[in-house]
Amino acid sequence: MNNTINMDSNTPTAINPHRFCVIMCGGIGSRFWPYSREGRPKQFIDFLGTGRSLLQMSYDRVLPMVKKENVIIVTNALYADLVREQLPEIRPDQILLEPARRNTAPCIAWAAYHIHAIDPEASIIVTPSDHLITREALFQDSILRGFEFVESNPALLTLGIKPTRPETGYGYIQIGKEVAPDIDAVKTFTEKPDLDLAKVFVESGEFFWNSGIFLWRAETIINQLHRYAPNVTAVFDRGLSVYNTPEETDFIQKAFPGCVSISIDYAVMEKSKDVYVECVNFGWNDLGTWSALFDNSPKNKDGNVTQRCTVLAYESGGNIFAVKGEKLIVVDGLHDYIVADAGDVLLICPKSKEQGIKQMVNDVKLKCGDKYL
Amino acid sequence: MNNTINMDSNTPTAINPHRFCVIMCGGIGSRFWPYSREGRPKQFIDFLGTGRSLLQMSYDRVLPMVKKENVIIVTNALYADLVREQLPEIRPDQILLEPARRNTAPCIAWAAYHIHAIDPEASIIVTPSDHLITREALFQDSILRGFEFVESNPALLTLGIKPTRPETGYGYIQIGKEVAPDIDAVKTFTEKPDLDLAKVFVESGEFFWNSGIFLWRAETIINQLHRYAPNVTAVFDRGLSVYNTPEETDFIQKAFPGCVSISIDYAVMEKSKDVYVECVNFGWNDLGTWSALFDNSPKNKDGNVTQRCTVLAYESGGNIFAVKGEKLIVVDGLHDYIVADAGDVLLICPKSKEQGIKQMVNDVKLKCGDKYL
Repeated sequence: MNNTINMDSNTPTAINPHRFCVIMCGGIGSRFWPYSREGRPKQFIDFLGTGRSLLQMSYDRVLPMVKKENVIIVTNALYADLVREQLPEIRPDQILLEPARRNTAPCIAWAAYHIHAIDPEASIIVTPSDHLITREALFQDSILRGFEFVESNPALLTLGIKPTRPETGYGYIQIGKEVAPDIDAVKTFTEKPDLDLAKVFVESGEFFWNSGIFLWRAETIINQLHRYAPNVTAVFDRGLSVYNTPEETDFIQKAFPGCVSISIDYAVMEKSKDVYVECVNFGWNDLGTWSALFDNSPKNKDGNVTQRCTVLAYESGGNIFAVKGEKLIVVDGLHDYIVADAGDVLLICPKSKEQGIKQMVNDVKLKCGDKYL
Repeated sequence: MNNTINMDSNTPTAINPHRFCVIMCGGIGSRFWPYSREGRPKQFIDFLGTGRSLLQMSYDRVLPMVKKENVIIVTNALYADLVREQLPEIRPDQILLEPARRNTAPCIAWAAYHIHAIDPEASIIVTPSDHLITREALFQDSILRGFEFVESNPALLTLGIKPTRPETGYGYIQIGKEVAPDIDAVKTFTEKPDLDLAKVFVESGEFFWNSGIFLWRAETIINQLHRYAPNVTAVFDRGLSVYNTPEETDFIQKAFPGCVSISIDYAVMEKSKDVYVECVNFGWNDLGTWSALFDNSPKNKDGNVTQRCTVLAYESGGNIFAVKGEKLIVVDGLHDYIVADAGDVLLICPKSKEQGIKQMVNDVKLKCGDKYL
């Protein structure tokens, strides 16, 4: 296999024009309710108070490696305006609007067919829009190495994050034979192990977190989808003549809702023999829970995490305060709570009970209708 | 003594035109920060969610006994606009604007001099603007009986509330010899007893809560002030020719700030031999603390008190939620807290630590300046 690194690809002038990026941007972020809402999910929020939303950060992050016009945003039709507002520099035809929620496999399939119609030689990085990545220089090195690998091999490549703790909320990938530096065959996928198993995984050094970041050639993923998810490709093959034409939108409006709802992991990755994992070591967090956000955020001297608010804390620690808009919070005698203020909704909930937030959202819908969702 | 009740005085057509009401309306309500603010203290808030502020409720309450044009509002100059906005039906000259905070004796003295200049035969009820009174028919009977008493006697009459619990936050009045039905001489005043003493007080049946509601003739209180607080009357005597004239405002601007700051209780009531207490039994609460408000407010099925907000509570009770504007609060695992949301400030504090709020307000001033006060 060819794993030579093209040293020039690290500079903007040498960006490979066959490289594309698909940013998956359709999630609803209900676990961060009410800080994230159906109308403005997590990826559209400046979650870290940096002045850029998670989507904008995801976009910024790939620009050194992918030409601006090769970035494709796949999102729900509901969020079209938000995407346009947050990424005003991209063209309308770079935004693929899903008319229904169908999980990641149909999303990835559509994007692959669309990109393949633009450039049959395209290679693609697929990335979530709502994860946190630090040490971006390492990220960039990893992605460039990954592109080189998938451009030289008919492989599906997933990025595996070196685990730093026995996290029970993530999927793990067990690595097999090394096929290139830091790129290995996949032995097993394991979803959300219990704590004892997670500890064994971390200690073994053989298990990596499944990041949900993928690299492949458009042709490769379309071929693999044909083999492992023919019910998905059956839908998209009917539109082969329309991708990257004015008729694409109409076709998708009619065809997409007929797709099964299935994740790319379940549809392809866990079945294919052509899956490889690139073991990477940049900072990564899926920001999937308040506790994850707490653990990965800087604490102030009281041991609290504050998002966009000033907190005056008395005998209070271990809390996470997340506020929309400027606000002063004065708190006494509160430990290990989530305090999330969204203007018209205030949530106060122990961090240990955050798994109940989903039920709360259901209850709110039942009692108050949709206005607070 | 004459304690005949004029039965006609209970109907609007028979309101005695010599009867005046002074509503003291200058407090800053810092104990309810941030729900009450320096810019809009407690008395101007619709505290009970009835659609009328405590000031408006105080005004409404005296109208059956005092002609509308005989109601005088004494407030700080800062709150002139709030008073005009909340009581648009009263004339500008019915609002006395204190240029400085000087406690109740100077406030009451000025109002007495002002009213005496309007009507030398005036009798006056003096009432706070920020207390809660229920069973208003009993209140009305008590006030009418009080007016009759002070109009027939050169007496200072204070209303004593039959205590319902050994409250340690109130002043108590011990009653002496009965001089008319439910009207007694005063034996002692006791400020804020400890709990053991408060229990003895309540059990004895001899002690009543000092309500801060007074009745007297204008002439009587001016005479008594001359005797017991000559440093106060010395200030106001210099303006005898200006009360109820266009020059009054200018005079007060210059003279009032030179007054000592002293309460009417300390200046006169605790010293005078002409003080009587009318023992009354209407519902009364000074709403002086969050806990008092909690105790006196209806609880929902979870045992929480909610002010103007919808609360969805999970394993949470004994809390008081006070919110400016419409808001949904979702709370889990919180017991016996104050949660007060004022838009730009959120306070979360155990009810048991509410005495610390004053210090918090000081800390906020120090760290953030005046904008949150």
